[in-house]
Amino acid sequence: MNNPNPVGVEPQDLVITRLVRAPRALVWKAWADPQLLKEWWCPKPWITEVRAFDMRPGGAFYTFMRGPDGGTSDNPGCFLEVVPKERIVCTSMLLGGWRPATPWLPFTAVISMADEGEGTRYIATVMHPDKATRDKHEEMGFFEGWGTCIDQLEAFAQQLG
Amino acid sequence: MNNPNPVGVEPQDLVITRLVRAPRALVWKAWADPQLLKEWWCPKPWITEVRAFDMRPGGAFYTFMRGPDGGTSDNPGCFLEVVPKERIVCTSMLLGGWRPATPWLPFTAVISMADEGEGTRYIATVMHPDKATRDKHEEMGFFEGWGTCIDQLEAFAQQLG
Repeated sequence: MNNPNPVGVEPQDLVITRLVRAPRALVWKAWADPQLLKEWWCPKPWITEVRAFDMRPGGAFYTFMRGPDGGTSDNPGCFLEVVPKERIVCTSMLLGGWRPATPWLPFTAVISMADEGEGTRYIATVMHPDKATRDKHEEMGFFEGWGTCIDQLEAFAQQLG
Repeated sequence: MNNPNPVGVEPQDLVITRLVRAPRALVWKAWADPQLLKEWWCPKPWITEVRAFDMRPGGAFYTFMRGPDGGTSDNPGCFLEVVPKERIVCTSMLLGGWRPATPWLPFTAVISMADEGEGTRYIATVMHPDKATRDKHEEMGFFEGWGTCIDQLEAFAQQLG
């Protein structure tokens, strides 16, 4: 299901492409509302707290995750581009108001959604500043983690219908 | 002429505010065309080569400067926001297409222009990730450097009229 090397993507990027079996309007709905997003955003049983969700260019996007063993993951960032039902770009490089961040994991994520049959072609392209950061992200479990979240998004979007 | 602490600015920011004695339309014109920008962008006798200038959100903005003694300054980045004749936001944190950078000097600059009498109130707010980076930028000669560039911008815009 993963396709790490589509045309036009650089060697320091990671890509997941999936056919999500839910209508694009519902996939978008699950993404664009922080009360819904937190239900599928991180692999369960971890839970997501959405600390900021200002979904417009330069708006803060800040999630904080907690695991059952007390582990946490602190992820401030901002939205760069928002095209309703089509495209979301966000980054860990900047905070709300375009303020420079000091990211523990530097990346920009481009999420695209397109109709495909009765489902949604969902592509997440995650760009890193260099190959070492990409490899670190992959070793942290990128494909498993983002794959699980897309599974959760799919199941959640289906029950919104 | 400098005002390092206007309301709403954080301690890790640097700010220059100036009344530029040229109409806002000409100040904008001098900024928005790379062939004109390169004439005033860095303190002379250094010269600017504009390697990319895609003036829209996510578009590359890349300047490379050379000094008479062989020194160089390599400054890739991207535009974040462009409101014609009013506001320009650019950063060293990202490259064209929102790709994460590895900046030697992490910052986001917000340039604002407003009419004031027959001139232009020109404010450059430069945000850094922390106080240490701000202080380094100031010690590198931020106020003198940016101040000289605004002098050059003013003189250049006046002769466009």
